[in-house]
Amino acid sequence: MVLRPGWFPEYSPAEQLVFDEVKAIIEANYRQYGFAHIQTPAVEPNTVLLAKNGEDAGKQIFWLYGLAQGKDDAKDYALHFDLTVPFARYVLDWENVLTFPFKRYQIQPVRRGERSQRGRFKEFWQSDIDVIWQDTEKWVIGKNLYYDAEILVVIAKTLHEIVAKFLDNKPFTVHINNRYLLAWFFSQFDEKVIPQLYNLLDKYYKISFDVFQKELALLVSSADVAKIVSFVQTTFDRLDPNLVDNDVYRKGYQEVQEVLRFVDGLNQENKYSIIWDPCIIRGLDYYTGTVYETLFDDDFALGSISSGGRYENLTGYINPKKSHYSGVGWSIWLSRMVYLILETMKPEHTTQTEYLFVHFPETIKDVLMLANIFINEGKNVEVYPSAEKLGKQFAYADKKWIPHVVILGEGEKILHRYKIKNMKTGEEREVGL
Amino acid sequence: MVLRPGWFPEYSPAEQLVFDEVKAIIEANYRQYGFAHIQTPAVEPNTVLLAKNGEDAGKQIFWLYGLAQGKDDAKDYALHFDLTVPFARYVLDWENVLTFPFKRYQIQPVRRGERSQRGRFKEFWQSDIDVIWQDTEKWVIGKNLYYDAEILVVIAKTLHEIVAKFLDNKPFTVHINNRYLLAWFFSQFDEKVIPQLYNLLDKYYKISFDVFQKELALLVSSADVAKIVSFVQTTFDRLDPNLVDNDVYRKGYQEVQEVLRFVDGLNQENKYSIIWDPCIIRGLDYYTGTVYETLFDDDFALGSISSGGRYENLTGYINPKKSHYSGVGWSIWLSRMVYLILETMKPEHTTQTEYLFVHFPETIKDVLMLANIFINEGKNVEVYPSAEKLGKQFAYADKKWIPHVVILGEGEKILHRYKIKNMKTGEEREVGL
Repeated sequence: MVLRPGWFPEYSPAEQLVFDEVKAIIEANYRQYGFAHIQTPAVEPNTVLLAKNGEDAGKQIFWLYGLAQGKDDAKDYALHFDLTVPFARYVLDWENVLTFPFKRYQIQPVRRGERSQRGRFKEFWQSDIDVIWQDTEKWVIGKNLYYDAEILVVIAKTLHEIVAKFLDNKPFTVHINNRYLLAWFFSQFDEKVIPQLYNLLDKYYKISFDVFQKELALLVSSADVAKIVSFVQTTFDRLDPNLVDNDVYRKGYQEVQEVLRFVDGLNQENKYSIIWDPCIIRGLDYYTGTVYETLFDDDFALGSISSGGRYENLTGYINPKKSHYSGVGWSIWLSRMVYLILETMKPEHTTQTEYLFVHFPETIKDVLMLANIFINEGKNVEVYPSAEKLGKQFAYADKKWIPHVVILGEGEKILHRYKIKNMKTGEEREVGL
Repeated sequence: MVLRPGWFPEYSPAEQLVFDEVKAIIEANYRQYGFAHIQTPAVEPNTVLLAKNGEDAGKQIFWLYGLAQGKDDAKDYALHFDLTVPFARYVLDWENVLTFPFKRYQIQPVRRGERSQRGRFKEFWQSDIDVIWQDTEKWVIGKNLYYDAEILVVIAKTLHEIVAKFLDNKPFTVHINNRYLLAWFFSQFDEKVIPQLYNLLDKYYKISFDVFQKELALLVSSADVAKIVSFVQTTFDRLDPNLVDNDVYRKGYQEVQEVLRFVDGLNQENKYSIIWDPCIIRGLDYYTGTVYETLFDDDFALGSISSGGRYENLTGYINPKKSHYSGVGWSIWLSRMVYLILETMKPEHTTQTEYLFVHFPETIKDVLMLANIFINEGKNVEVYPSAEKLGKQFAYADKKWIPHVVILGEGEKILHRYKIKNMKTGEEREVGL
């Protein structure tokens, strides 16, 4: 029987090594593009957590209470359910210290008290990057569009390295769209069915094309079905760039065009598959310009492994009187990636130890001196703790997949040598002391 | 006004870089000695959290409640207040998977609902290492004593690297003692005053020697004061190794001797200051053999920055019917170390970016290609997001302490060159494209 609370996952040491490697790839890439690391406490004030979607958010929040603090103190805050709300609060708390545009990354677990289901945990890790800037005007169309492209390429590069290492180069594509383009296209239909059309589009990759068409027919006329089907199947270069008399269309078209131009600059070897995709929606309230999702080409059913978009006035709902901040952000679903990887592989290594030093009482001082030399050279080392039978000491190395055993007994010491045994091949090599 | 909850600290991006570097030093050292990384959820079952010190622990726990889970589900678990209880539970949950002796490290925040005071936070980071093994007999004196020494040297090496980097080599000493030796010495006094004597000894480094003597005189006769003062001022080599008729004494003496012998082997260059110190107690219940504390030689008042010891039957209080596990463990107070460092320095760098690429609309494709080359070489790079006036782009580099700016405008492009400006010296260097 497992003692820990259900749906709060944890890893075996071997699985943790995989998690750590995936996390290290993400961090290295975020850092390389100048994103600064921040961490926020596990809790936020309730006023902040509930400022935006009070009732909805309230349902999934883990609230706190405690004895020592007095009821009221502990009840003022609760566990964060994402990393975006804490980031918005962080920007307000530190705005006099930060340099804008401020690029941050944040990799932390979040907690949601949802009724759990397969792959949906009550605690899971997110890894977000965002760029945020102060808007003196309320909202400048197309400001800092370079970041829309940069973030997209950072994510593509990061996922590329993860799938190369752990998922046999499983092919994936970054799908990009723009909320203005969507707004322009759907403005030709009855306002009342637009939310339903959005919802249907959002399911596009999870249902068959047949079902998509049938559900569409329940919402609009057959002529409109044809129009929508034609739209979702078109490519960006077949859109008409000259619909300049429509403001909303022009904003969307120009934003996508500009983002793709920057993407080209950063992806000149065409290493990453990045396409414009009219089916990408990304929820209804939050995003205002570019939106993204990332899908495995051979596994749409899994859903997005990373997504994001551009948003207006991040901090306004917390404190409407303060500066406006707008930005663009993205998250890799770290726990979901690791879950996927661990479904397809069973990690064997439980340690990063490279050398196990055998313990002999009569030469232990020399053994420890030699181990120290290895450590000073940056190698990962263990010394067996006591002079048990050699078989037992070797069995420990075997069980933990330690690749080399170093032997310095009395025989070796007399000859001013030690032996290194390769545990895979069984080969022994003698080295001078 | 700061929005985040009081006593839940967070760092500015510049301070976070310091935290990350300290954490990286700790992790690298733990890994080098073969300690495997584990992480546990933020919560543990209440039955586990309260199994040992029910009432005391209960006062400082942050309990959870939630709406979606139903009262009972969420109320079954609470936030962990240390990393030892989660580790004990982890060992029971994974015992069939682990190889023993199992060496683990764990670096995570913990939460305590204490009334806060200077330097005592409601959320803070610990970084623990432990070695644990199964005891078929109930408790074997001196088993795996090598680990008592190894852990001590890992901590000394780690702290040595931290103070070398951030605290101007502030001198520190690892103080080691043994609970058997203490038990032997204090068994000659009245049983009723022993707890008070222990408490007084525990304050030894926080009060003056005069006060120590005066408080001692309130507890024991003047002859006994002299005896105790002589004991606390003695060194290990002046203890009599021949009190072999006393079992408790012999255990303690031999354990210290053996640990120091291993320490000598691992510390042959005498890099670290490690002494036997009869004043080290480390609380009353928990530890059974070796105990340690680490003090700055010039700042005893600060208290221990890292401490630990050997304990018997870690998991027994959670499930008395399961296997016995005993071990030795240590923690570096990560948040306290960083607090101390940030008291003595004001970090300037807010980013690890090495090169800022200036944005020119007419050459942006070349600029991005060049930035990509830098990235492929492993350098940390930012591209300024838009073609603002050069002064503004340079000001951004200045503010963020980015050391180099790369300039590839039309003039440079025609000459198949780009320029790198060193922001510190003002020097410009031309490089062929």
